[in-house]
Amino acid sequence: MRYVYQFDEGHPVDRRLLGGKGAGLAEMSRIGLPVPPGFTITTEACRAYQRLKRLPDGLMDEVWEHVRRLEGRLDRRLGDPAKPLLVSVRSGAPISMPGMMDTVLNLGLNRETAEGLAALTQNRRFALDSYRRFIQMFGNVVMHMEHRRFEEVLDQIKAQAGISLDTELTEGHLTTVIDRYLALVHESTGQRFPDDPRDQLVMAIQAVFDSWNNPRAQVYRRVNKIADDLGTAVTVQSMVFGNMGNTSATGVLFTRNPNTGEPGIYGEYLTNAQGEDVVAGIRTPSNLQDMAREMPETYAALERVAKLLEAHYRDMQDIEFTVEQQQLYVLQTRAGKRTARAAVKIAVDMVREGIITAEEAVKRQDPEQVQRLLYRQIDPHASYDLLAKGLPASPGAASGRVVFSADEAELRGKAGEAVILVRPETTPDDIHGIVVAQGVLTSRGGMTSHAAIVARGMGKPAVTGCEALKISLEGQWFQVGDRTIAKDAVITIDGGTGQVMLGEVPTVEPELSEEFSELLAWADRLRTLDVLANADTPEDAAKARAFGAVGIGLCRTEHMFMGQDRLPVVQDMILAERVDERERALARLLPMQEEDFYGILQAMDGYPVTIRLLDPPLHEFLPDLEDAQEALAEARSRGDAALAEHWETILRRTRSLQEFNPMLGFRGVRLGIVYPEIYRMQARAIFQAQARLLSEGFHPVVQVMIPLVGVPQELRRMKAMIQEVNGEVARETGRALPYKLGTMIEVPRAALVAREIARDAEFFSFGTNDLTQTTFGYSRDDAESKFLPVYLADKILADNPFVVLDQEGVGRLICLAVEDGRAERPGLKVGICGEHGGEPSSIRFCHQVGMDYVSCSPYRVPVARLAAAQAALS
Amino acid sequence: MRYVYQFDEGHPVDRRLLGGKGAGLAEMSRIGLPVPPGFTITTEACRAYQRLKRLPDGLMDEVWEHVRRLEGRLDRRLGDPAKPLLVSVRSGAPISMPGMMDTVLNLGLNRETAEGLAALTQNRRFALDSYRRFIQMFGNVVMHMEHRRFEEVLDQIKAQAGISLDTELTEGHLTTVIDRYLALVHESTGQRFPDDPRDQLVMAIQAVFDSWNNPRAQVYRRVNKIADDLGTAVTVQSMVFGNMGNTSATGVLFTRNPNTGEPGIYGEYLTNAQGEDVVAGIRTPSNLQDMAREMPETYAALERVAKLLEAHYRDMQDIEFTVEQQQLYVLQTRAGKRTARAAVKIAVDMVREGIITAEEAVKRQDPEQVQRLLYRQIDPHASYDLLAKGLPASPGAASGRVVFSADEAELRGKAGEAVILVRPETTPDDIHGIVVAQGVLTSRGGMTSHAAIVARGMGKPAVTGCEALKISLEGQWFQVGDRTIAKDAVITIDGGTGQVMLGEVPTVEPELSEEFSELLAWADRLRTLDVLANADTPEDAAKARAFGAVGIGLCRTEHMFMGQDRLPVVQDMILAERVDERERALARLLPMQEEDFYGILQAMDGYPVTIRLLDPPLHEFLPDLEDAQEALAEARSRGDAALAEHWETILRRTRSLQEFNPMLGFRGVRLGIVYPEIYRMQARAIFQAQARLLSEGFHPVVQVMIPLVGVPQELRRMKAMIQEVNGEVARETGRALPYKLGTMIEVPRAALVAREIARDAEFFSFGTNDLTQTTFGYSRDDAESKFLPVYLADKILADNPFVVLDQEGVGRLICLAVEDGRAERPGLKVGICGEHGGEPSSIRFCHQVGMDYVSCSPYRVPVARLAAAQAALS
Repeated sequence: MRYVYQFDEGHPVDRRLLGGKGAGLAEMSRIGLPVPPGFTITTEACRAYQRLKRLPDGLMDEVWEHVRRLEGRLDRRLGDPAKPLLVSVRSGAPISMPGMMDTVLNLGLNRETAEGLAALTQNRRFALDSYRRFIQMFGNVVMHMEHRRFEEVLDQIKAQAGISLDTELTEGHLTTVIDRYLALVHESTGQRFPDDPRDQLVMAIQAVFDSWNNPRAQVYRRVNKIADDLGTAVTVQSMVFGNMGNTSATGVLFTRNPNTGEPGIYGEYLTNAQGEDVVAGIRTPSNLQDMAREMPETYAALERVAKLLEAHYRDMQDIEFTVEQQQLYVLQTRAGKRTARAAVKIAVDMVREGIITAEEAVKRQDPEQVQRLLYRQIDPHASYDLLAKGLPASPGAASGRVVFSADEAELRGKAGEAVILVRPETTPDDIHGIVVAQGVLTSRGGMTSHAAIVARGMGKPAVTGCEALKISLEGQWFQVGDRTIAKDAVITIDGGTGQVMLGEVPTVEPELSEEFSELLAWADRLRTLDVLANADTPEDAAKARAFGAVGIGLCRTEHMFMGQDRLPVVQDMILAERVDERERALARLLPMQEEDFYGILQAMDGYPVTIRLLDPPLHEFLPDLEDAQEALAEARSRGDAALAEHWETILRRTRSLQEFNPMLGFRGVRLGIVYPEIYRMQARAIFQAQARLLSEGFHPVVQVMIPLVGVPQELRRMKAMIQEVNGEVARETGRALPYKLGTMIEVPRAALVAREIARDAEFFSFGTNDLTQTTFGYSRDDAESKFLPVYLADKILADNPFVVLDQEGVGRLICLAVEDGRAERPGLKVGICGEHGGEPSSIRFCHQVGMDYVSCSPYRVPVARLAAAQAALS
Repeated sequence: MRYVYQFDEGHPVDRRLLGGKGAGLAEMSRIGLPVPPGFTITTEACRAYQRLKRLPDGLMDEVWEHVRRLEGRLDRRLGDPAKPLLVSVRSGAPISMPGMMDTVLNLGLNRETAEGLAALTQNRRFALDSYRRFIQMFGNVVMHMEHRRFEEVLDQIKAQAGISLDTELTEGHLTTVIDRYLALVHESTGQRFPDDPRDQLVMAIQAVFDSWNNPRAQVYRRVNKIADDLGTAVTVQSMVFGNMGNTSATGVLFTRNPNTGEPGIYGEYLTNAQGEDVVAGIRTPSNLQDMAREMPETYAALERVAKLLEAHYRDMQDIEFTVEQQQLYVLQTRAGKRTARAAVKIAVDMVREGIITAEEAVKRQDPEQVQRLLYRQIDPHASYDLLAKGLPASPGAASGRVVFSADEAELRGKAGEAVILVRPETTPDDIHGIVVAQGVLTSRGGMTSHAAIVARGMGKPAVTGCEALKISLEGQWFQVGDRTIAKDAVITIDGGTGQVMLGEVPTVEPELSEEFSELLAWADRLRTLDVLANADTPEDAAKARAFGAVGIGLCRTEHMFMGQDRLPVVQDMILAERVDERERALARLLPMQEEDFYGILQAMDGYPVTIRLLDPPLHEFLPDLEDAQEALAEARSRGDAALAEHWETILRRTRSLQEFNPMLGFRGVRLGIVYPEIYRMQARAIFQAQARLLSEGFHPVVQVMIPLVGVPQELRRMKAMIQEVNGEVARETGRALPYKLGTMIEVPRAALVAREIARDAEFFSFGTNDLTQTTFGYSRDDAESKFLPVYLADKILADNPFVVLDQEGVGRLICLAVEDGRAERPGLKVGICGEHGGEPSSIRFCHQVGMDYVSCSPYRVPVARLAAAQAALS
């Protein structure tokens, strides 16, 4: 039985035997990386230790043999006052259990070796501080003393010295600390602190083995269902020092530029320093490029290491290194964090360099991160006056006048003014203000604060936790440093970076880089889900096409009714008391609707355009009850009888159309059933536009979609009527006008009777916004302002179901509907056109349940293409 | 092969061979009923005829043999001028095809036999009219002449004679008609009308066989999936005459009183008359009791017949009879229509008489009809001034002042006045008036008119189609005959009978008759579903118990919050801006709630009381926005600063609680999550009441129900909190306070994740009102006033889903939830507490899916017990 393996002895790497850390160090050594040498004691040794309640026979013999080899290799010796070997002793389980078990650093120190380290590093304070820390860590981990006891000593000495920071401790102070620590250990445990590094090592190895069974590790294993009999390995690794003179250094590097993705190593270093010095910010590190001049050989070695690591891990790496007297050591490597832009460029470059495949490049993108490339951004050429920086809580850039209350934001926002709502923090009572503001800025709260969640939910820029802001709600101003910004001042926020700028900073539309386009082209090859867009105008259709949409999955016709020129006619239509009056108004709308459909079908020529017939309740097209009352009162006071009568009619009709729950009211196909002439007009407009385009050589692909169907008979009626109109227009124009007819599935009942509905529907489009509302019984407007923030904060719901599709509930309905619908009609096309159609985890679900397409807002199309490809690859 | 069977030859009855009619006549003959004698030609003969395209050999020989027997038996002969035999020739398929095939009556008439009939009946006009009708029927059915041709002749003669009614035709006119008819037949068909009754019979038999394949019969068979090769039988039956002098008569009888159910035959008769005379109302029939004196033997024979038929058909019969010269003939018998009261009494009496079993008695009741016994009714001892009678469109009696517009009804109804809305007809625009009126009266529209459907949906009395009313909307009055009833007059309507009465007629609470109680006791033995009641007060609970409820399935706590003494405290609680303020208000509510629960648990002692924690949105407890605005304006104008501030607070809070879709908003368990202190107070009140009752020797059975759960975590939280409160009260009172905790299933998601919810719920109660709203995406208030009437009228929906549970959609969710819930927790109790819990077809569904109970309003409890028993029997 063999218990100990040297990192670089080329033995096959066995994670189960060597633990995660041991295996990683072995792997890095194996590929020729200069890692500080050391060895690993196997999990088998641990298991034997647990069984025997003592270190198994022969184990320490092997350990001493490996220590000897280490001493030889590094020309240092455990306990040698001149050239002391220091090591770390760490746990390493086969399955990662971060922070659950114990570690001892700087093992090998005692009074003599500490002085030796002082001489070697020419930094006695560092050596003494390392010794002090070692006693504390060893005392706690190995000798089971409370951490608090050491802290008390330290606090006393600092108090006596009249200092507050650890860094202010002098060598004299540290010597006192060490004395007191050693006395404390003796006093508390009845044992002397072990001076002999060999004793230290034996004790440390046993302590790490013991920590396998400490209570928190046991709980962790139970919760994470990790077997109790795996045991942990122990790695013993030599410590290295970047502060041993001017041929030593320490630093971090990225194998490529993490901001832009440009190739070439990129990073910072400090000569004659330890890693902590970089983090502490006491000295300003140099740019890595300088090293090429200062330490050309080391630089060249780093370049080789970077290449090696990229080739091995097949990703851009973030590497920590130390140079100890010209000898380069890699301490750690991991995948480097990068901006969205860099992520795309690096992945595409790596495909071109043959390092990874296109599939991998696609798989590696975080779609939500990529989405940031598609938000409105600060013009990169703009200069601006940066006021402060907060948390990038919800991406996008926006400018507006500062207001301090939600009520004022609502008032001015509704009046069309661009405002930024500035608050210490927001609460559900502020929603009405957030809705109309351009963006939100708070001085408190993190990435998951109310403001952050709500703003992300609404796709609105937000900067939160901007603590540099001192807000006075009474004074209606905020201060940053010595500057005071009053209400009505214009500011700009960038929710992607967290920046807050004074004045209106120019922003730009996002553009797709060449690499991004390439990546998306690969994604298109890989995905099976089609990506369509929700678009209501030719402009949106063109944008969607530019972003790669292959059709329109949802073209809402109600927005067309809202146009300045249309609204009066639409109102006449609604106010009509008889069918013939209504038909006269509809006849005036017909040519306008025909133009609408002509434009959008032309813009999407050759691709399907799914036109949803009128959906919202008619009262949405009428004025507010209060406005109408006022207008009536005015007309009366002016004695204008005709006008008064007009307003009386409007008022009466508005009253009769008022609803308790408009979301569940007289809308969708219910309008088509009660007022068939409206849908008839829309169908005619569609087919007339189609006929014109065909006569002009275009290739319109028409899909007519009926909203809010819940009863199969509703669809059957509408289908017959639309077929009739199609026949009429076909006869009038002498052209065949092929089209497909389908339905939205957006109330639970539609999903439950999908089989029957599929008899008449050629496609299903899941309207998951409404389906989520009805399945949960949540009115989105009310839920997000009243109780959803509490639900999310209290983890009653993991995600806002209006953002991330609820797979258990809504998803189960979708599964039922897809299955039943296809059982009735095997070729049934199925897609989704709610906001979820642009959300990656929801897209994965759509792929898994076998949908044919997702449809989302034009700006989400690239993300959806990516997510669809990832879903296909997963 | 034998083709002909005499009715009474005792051969086993074979429907397939003899057809429905032939089998029925054979059966009646077999049990000794005096049916006019005759014989049946089998369907085999028909099939042979179809195959051969001619009457099969031997058939007519058999027919003549049977005709001879008939002649002998009745002492009449076909074609005998002195004693003519007349017969009917009718079709009779094995499966009923009503009206699809042909019939010839009075076959055997010609000039000579008509005079013979005249002598026999001493009614020459009758004989001539019969002959005239026979020519017309035979000409049409057998000789394929258009009916219209005969009518034209008749019209000409009436015009020449200057008369308008057929009954005004004299013997002279009829002789002319007969001559012209015979000439017309000859002229149109080229054939002479057959004078020889034997020719008539052969032709009629062929015609009936031929009618098996007429187009409408073919279509009927296709639609109803009846095989084409069954063929029809032909029955030949002697005609009998009740107008052959004073020893002849005709009449109808019920074997028991159809209004009260009292035993003993009951009916009317006319001496020396034909059935048509009774129907035409020319003479007033006598009460059947008189016959006991006038024709005692016949009366005794009728009593024997009634007994025989009841014993055979095991139900109360409605019998048509004719006495021809002292000889009694039964022409028809069928189950008699009866009032709800009679139906119950007859069924119970028949069980007691040993005629039917208790199961059958229960099975036979129409629950909806029985329900009428439970509506408020006109005091049977009251005298009243009957104005008119319309259709009994929605049962129940109500009084109120006459108003003619929905707006006025709303205004005055909301002010607490009792009004009856009177309209020519109602439309969806009138709903707001119907809602608050005591009842509805319309002069137009049937049982399925808007007013009828809406009123039934609301359980409100309505009389529709009361055409005697002439309504003047301008004049604000209506006329009945020569009486004018002005606006504001008090009227009473009885929607169970259709009566409209002047003034306020006293009404009475319904009472359960002794027979009804007995019937329900049988139902209780048979049913497996428990019937609980929805009740919020001790009074309702007592009523429910009196009606046989075995617990409360839904006790709504919000009604308790609405009390005059509570509302101000509830408002304080809602207006509280801090938790401690809210808790102070809740502390004041606690003793009141405890009293509520004490009362209701005491009233239902020993039976479960399912208490639903607060459900409605809080704004329901605050004043209207407009009212608050007015109050604020007034406070300001009076310079009352404190009051103004109070109203400002209310206004602010009311605004912040306003919702777009309250139905889908901040209510149910969402309140419990955001303001846990409210549910905590309610739980404490429940357990304190329970502890008090236990200490007083009662047996409270407590079930706590959480409303509107859709996310399992919601229930888990509330369960933990309620358990905590239970523990507190148990410690404080020193008593174990057992209870069950369950949830409403009233949003689709709850049904979809039922398995997970069942981990924490000990019972599920389907709130099918809300579940229907969310599954369909219908707000009930809006749907019933806007589009549901159209959906029902156009048959897009077969039933109003708020009245009759939608089994395809909502029912599918219920099935899923029951299955999944029980998979997780096998003993899970499942019930329904929506309005559907009292609707018979919905109750059957609840039984089928394996629910444990239904809960409905106290007045529906008896019906539910009955329907539950029927479900168990079906």
